[in-house]
Amino acid sequence: MDALRVGIVGAGGYTGAELVRLCHAHPRLSIEWVAAREKAGKRLADVLPGTQGVAELGERALEAFDPADAADIAKRIDVAFTALPHAASARVGKALFNAGVRVVDLSADFRLHNAATYGEWYGEHPAPELLEQAVYGLPELHRAELKGARLIAAPGCYPTASILPLAPLLARGLVESRGLIIDAKSGVSGAGRTPSPGTHYPETAEGLRPYKIAGHHRHAPEIEQELGLVARKEVRVVFTPHLVPMSRGILTTAYATPKAGVTAEQCRKAARQQYAGGLVTVLDEGRLPDTLWVRGTARAHIAYALDQRSGTLLAMGAIDNLARGASAQAIQALNVALGWPDALGLPQVATFP
Amino acid sequence: MDALRVGIVGAGGYTGAELVRLCHAHPRLSIEWVAAREKAGKRLADVLPGTQGVAELGERALEAFDPADAADIAKRIDVAFTALPHAASARVGKALFNAGVRVVDLSADFRLHNAATYGEWYGEHPAPELLEQAVYGLPELHRAELKGARLIAAPGCYPTASILPLAPLLARGLVESRGLIIDAKSGVSGAGRTPSPGTHYPETAEGLRPYKIAGHHRHAPEIEQELGLVARKEVRVVFTPHLVPMSRGILTTAYATPKAGVTAEQCRKAARQQYAGGLVTVLDEGRLPDTLWVRGTARAHIAYALDQRSGTLLAMGAIDNLARGASAQAIQALNVALGWPDALGLPQVATFP
Amino acid sequence: MDALRVGIVGAGGYTGAELVRLCHAHPRLSIEWVAAREKAGKRLADVLPGTQGVAELGERALEAFDPADAADIAKRIDVAFTALPHAASARVGKALFNAGVRVVDLSADFRLHNAATYGEWYGEHPAPELLEQAVYGLPELHRAELKGARLIAAPGCYPTASILPLAPLLARGLVESRGLIIDAKSGVSGAGRTPSPGTHYPETAEGLRPYKIAGHHRHAPEIEQELGLVARKEVRVVFTPHLVPMSRGILTTAYATPKAGVTAEQCRKAARQQYAGGLVTVLDEGRLPDTLWVRGTARAHIAYALDQRSGTLLAMGAIDNLARGASAQAIQALNVALGWPDALGLPQVATFP
Amino acid sequence: MDALRVGIVGAGGYTGAELVRLCHAHPRLSIEWVAAREKAGKRLADVLPGTQGVAELGERALEAFDPADAADIAKRIDVAFTALPHAASARVGKALFNAGVRVVDLSADFRLHNAATYGEWYGEHPAPELLEQAVYGLPELHRAELKGARLIAAPGCYPTASILPLAPLLARGLVESRGLIIDAKSGVSGAGRTPSPGTHYPETAEGLRPYKIAGHHRHAPEIEQELGLVARKEVRVVFTPHLVPMSRGILTTAYATPKAGVTAEQCRKAARQQYAGGLVTVLDEGRLPDTLWVRGTARAHIAYALDQRSGTLLAMGAIDNLARGASAQAIQALNVALGWPDALGLPQVATFP
Repeated sequence: MDALRVGIVGAGGYTGAELVRLCHAHPRLSIEWVAAREKAGKRLADVLPGTQGVAELGERALEAFDPADAADIAKRIDVAFTALPHAASARVGKALFNAGVRVVDLSADFRLHNAATYGEWYGEHPAPELLEQAVYGLPELHRAELKGARLIAAPGCYPTASILPLAPLLARGLVESRGLIIDAKSGVSGAGRTPSPGTHYPETAEGLRPYKIAGHHRHAPEIEQELGLVARKEVRVVFTPHLVPMSRGILTTAYATPKAGVTAEQCRKAARQQYAGGLVTVLDEGRLPDTLWVRGTARAHIAYALDQRSGTLLAMGAIDNLARGASAQAIQALNVALGWPDALGLPQVATFP
Repeated sequence: MDALRVGIVGAGGYTGAELVRLCHAHPRLSIEWVAAREKAGKRLADVLPGTQGVAELGERALEAFDPADAADIAKRIDVAFTALPHAASARVGKALFNAGVRVVDLSADFRLHNAATYGEWYGEHPAPELLEQAVYGLPELHRAELKGARLIAAPGCYPTASILPLAPLLARGLVESRGLIIDAKSGVSGAGRTPSPGTHYPETAEGLRPYKIAGHHRHAPEIEQELGLVARKEVRVVFTPHLVPMSRGILTTAYATPKAGVTAEQCRKAARQQYAGGLVTVLDEGRLPDTLWVRGTARAHIAYALDQRSGTLLAMGAIDNLARGASAQAIQALNVALGWPDALGLPQVATFP
Repeated sequence: MDALRVGIVGAGGYTGAELVRLCHAHPRLSIEWVAAREKAGKRLADVLPGTQGVAELGERALEAFDPADAADIAKRIDVAFTALPHAASARVGKALFNAGVRVVDLSADFRLHNAATYGEWYGEHPAPELLEQAVYGLPELHRAELKGARLIAAPGCYPTASILPLAPLLARGLVESRGLIIDAKSGVSGAGRTPSPGTHYPETAEGLRPYKIAGHHRHAPEIEQELGLVARKEVRVVFTPHLVPMSRGILTTAYATPKAGVTAEQCRKAARQQYAGGLVTVLDEGRLPDTLWVRGTARAHIAYALDQRSGTLLAMGAIDNLARGASAQAIQALNVALGWPDALGLPQVATFP
Repeated sequence: MDALRVGIVGAGGYTGAELVRLCHAHPRLSIEWVAAREKAGKRLADVLPGTQGVAELGERALEAFDPADAADIAKRIDVAFTALPHAASARVGKALFNAGVRVVDLSADFRLHNAATYGEWYGEHPAPELLEQAVYGLPELHRAELKGARLIAAPGCYPTASILPLAPLLARGLVESRGLIIDAKSGVSGAGRTPSPGTHYPETAEGLRPYKIAGHHRHAPEIEQELGLVARKEVRVVFTPHLVPMSRGILTTAYATPKAGVTAEQCRKAARQQYAGGLVTVLDEGRLPDTLWVRGTARAHIAYALDQRSGTLLAMGAIDNLARGASAQAIQALNVALGWPDALGLPQVATFP
């Protein structure tokens, strides 16, 4: 069977680079077009030296994308991954989508269903008319809608790591929907490829800090939207991101109030039911998640524990922010949209160590 | 004026090594005796190659300590820092204390006032009769008791980072004493100098994991004891430690329910009053703690923020676990006991980067 | 076509773990048997938590291998990767080989052709009669011998990174065969999975040190054997390994004396000819190797530069020590032995960042 | 006795920050003036958050320096450390020096005695008339000239780590002056505080690469000048710098050809004689340098080994690039200039771990 022809817009960024790695190894995807606004004209190997010597990949020239060329591009590719900053991503995605290309967008642009909420956090939406068609690409929660989807919003990294441990609990009413606290810790690649003082090696190694706390991080509304959908009521979370001196990985430690009598084992059972057939591993009792064990993979590891003395339930999750938290999940969503197995072509065993 | 003669028991461990570094630089302390059970007979430079070439320090022989020799040792030193595993530390400390040596113990042995609580977590106490005389060596909270103290229990690393941000709030009734959540993150040196799979470099770098969660960490009762004292009522905390891929540093993010109308600024004001004259920096509004900025120093940085939407108060702290969280705080407590300024001889400016 | 049935002996070590990851993703290999002496009876997921939830892989039980069972095992697998400490590896490999299983050994046991040399460095050889049949599994240098090979010695990590940049120069007489200096730098995973003081996180991060210098590292005779073969004369190298605070990766910087008039471009040309069809990328002029760009892959990056002032040629190489330096190269050699393309099923694009 | 009043120009950079840390802890230096061109008007605590809460230090305002104000500044300080980019540093240093301030410059501006050589590497010298008065501030080699010196050029980091192991060998003719190879490895802080792609955390952690090789690094002429002086003949070196994923530290591995019969012990003896009274530790036989053991200190560790088979001498050194390689050595040189002990106020015991 012929491979699906893929285009990657924003190939020079971290999620773009991860798409290149994963699509290159995928048995039914073939990278046919790579675009990167500011790097246009360079070879892919100039921007991603890891492709040097990989024939037909490293030598491929990065193109600039002009929306006016959408129809031409549509002849060359079947699906486009758009991995640009917000707003820019929607503009490219819209042009390609309207030209008939299936689009998987990795920015925040198509994740929030409500254009007004988007506006509060990101500014005016460039393509609000498409919001209704976009499917939130978290396959274990939106499998039915994803079948055949032509516009997929790949979830954010923090939302993925936050939603996965909590969704089964809220869906089955095992915990209160109020008073949720999510203490999240991320590796530095989550900040993107642009150098800054806060990601300068000497000031990052051996540094550990909270940032954008107390309701200031853009991923909070995305988390609340999805948890609200499964809970079928409004959900508010305290979301505290931290920057941790490692390249990849997100660990979330969420604190919730269990309904009377709820046990950790019930939570594990609920999660196993919810995630059957997907790429979420619910850890056995006594095991705790570690970013080490999901590195480079499409898998999320989640775990539950009950603090008996205080009556607090801990729901924890670990993902690779660039893989399960971005590019691998984007491909998983595409796999589902096309009727392929979730895991097709995706790494499941961690790169260890 | 003559320097105080110092002995360090357990000089080969991390807190012992930090004591060597700090005492060597202290203008009124002179290292006269170093002991280390298993390394006895070696030179200090063999165990701490960082002392190679430092005359009169690196060439000093490590001695084994036999309690029967306490009287002899008492002629050679004025103060002993005991930095051994629990139980062993109390046994050495007791012998020296009874021989008239001032003792600053860095193990858990003299921190808990209640021998029964100690027993639950550590086993039978080797010297329960001394518990009443021991002073918890957190100078900003126990300044008066520390004056002249001859048996000081240097606080644990997690407790220091947990108590400092929360104590002023509980002391002044700014937050509820129930429902406290402390999400703590520590560098790897907190696990000590003995190699183990969980601290093996390839499985630690790029790994991030919770451990001993849900009431299983020995530092929880110590935190609850001290917070209970300032709150003048029983306090229970959810304490979740995490291992972070860095050598030094602890960051705590605590979540509390503020009393009606309490603002972050009130918290900062309370903390500034509490900590005046000590070595705790209360960060200005908008600034957040970072382990980067306290590295190698006796200072703690703390900060407060209010999550308006959920009505949750965040109290955060950063320390160097081996310095403020152990050896530097031990010396600070000694300074106070002797009537010297808190900061005498202690690094206050972070080693950066 | 049916997949080849694979067994992995020593699945709990780092090269074993990497074999699990790579074989699992390989389209024509199927893991049918996993063995690990000390972990026998555990599930693979207990030893490699990264396989948790990966059906039919993580739940597989680790077996102990008794040479008496070789005939039974030979019915279950077509090829065995043996990744045990030296001597132990040869004993297992011999039993399986004699039972008809194709063997790819990742220890040092079958790399040196001369049993006496082996004896000097490792002790008496447990299966000297097999040395003649073993093929050194560096495909770009031994392609013809590897076709159909049934006993393959996967090269060491340092030798791979040392031989690749130098072999084309010696093969074509572009540099003197005397006075070769190889300054090598390795990540910590090269030391294996057993914890030790020298690999304890706090004493490894921010530490950088030479070790086993001046002719004391076991990889020196392996390098000299292979370089001697291509040079068709005895070769002696100064080999200086260093431990670098990173998990994976080896970088070698070799210094050689060029024959009169030799240019860096001639070296690049020689290397490109030598390595055509293989998995070695010869970097263009002005580009230098970086372990970052080969991470997780079967590719080696090599480069050349001429220091005009001193008349010294620099030959540099970067590999992932566990992938190209061990397990990926082992599979590449197997691919070649079976007549498959070198890169079949192997990652070629770096995991970045 | 009154403390010497110190000014630090460029307090916001890494060497400036290290000067702040070290001068603050020095018993006879008092920081009275801090300047930073682009940060003028900010508090020191804004630029170096590690000084937050340190009274009279963190609140100090950063000033801009106008050469026209040199006379005024000269009334406020006795000595200025100038830690700016080259050329800018010389301009400030010149103004202050001419106004009567003792100047210790940490840039490259006063290190090369030959203005023409400076011109080749850095551009036209802004103050060539001062070159003759400047003393190269490596105390163990220039002790006599440093006594009373009023213009001191603090050595570069790579030169310090390269010169120290090699100088005693060349001074006593133990090795050939030709064919010297220096393979140097540096932590990332050596690249300064300005973020760049090459120092962005995710692309630096787990990356290891050579750069500016084959005669392209500006530190080569400085190394050759100083080695030439001790050898009393022209010296040429192959100098290969590498970037290593750690914040601080330089390790050099130098390869030299020993004169007939020379042993490693002779080298150690020569170095011990050369460095008596200074801050260089010559390691005993069998011990090798490690950046871990010099972190944060003014000490250099050096070691020697002979590769018998090839007749190559290895001379190795480890320093902290910001401490011994910059700011601590600058203070050591000032100590010597003022007739104080080399080590006065300087850390000698490594911050470990």
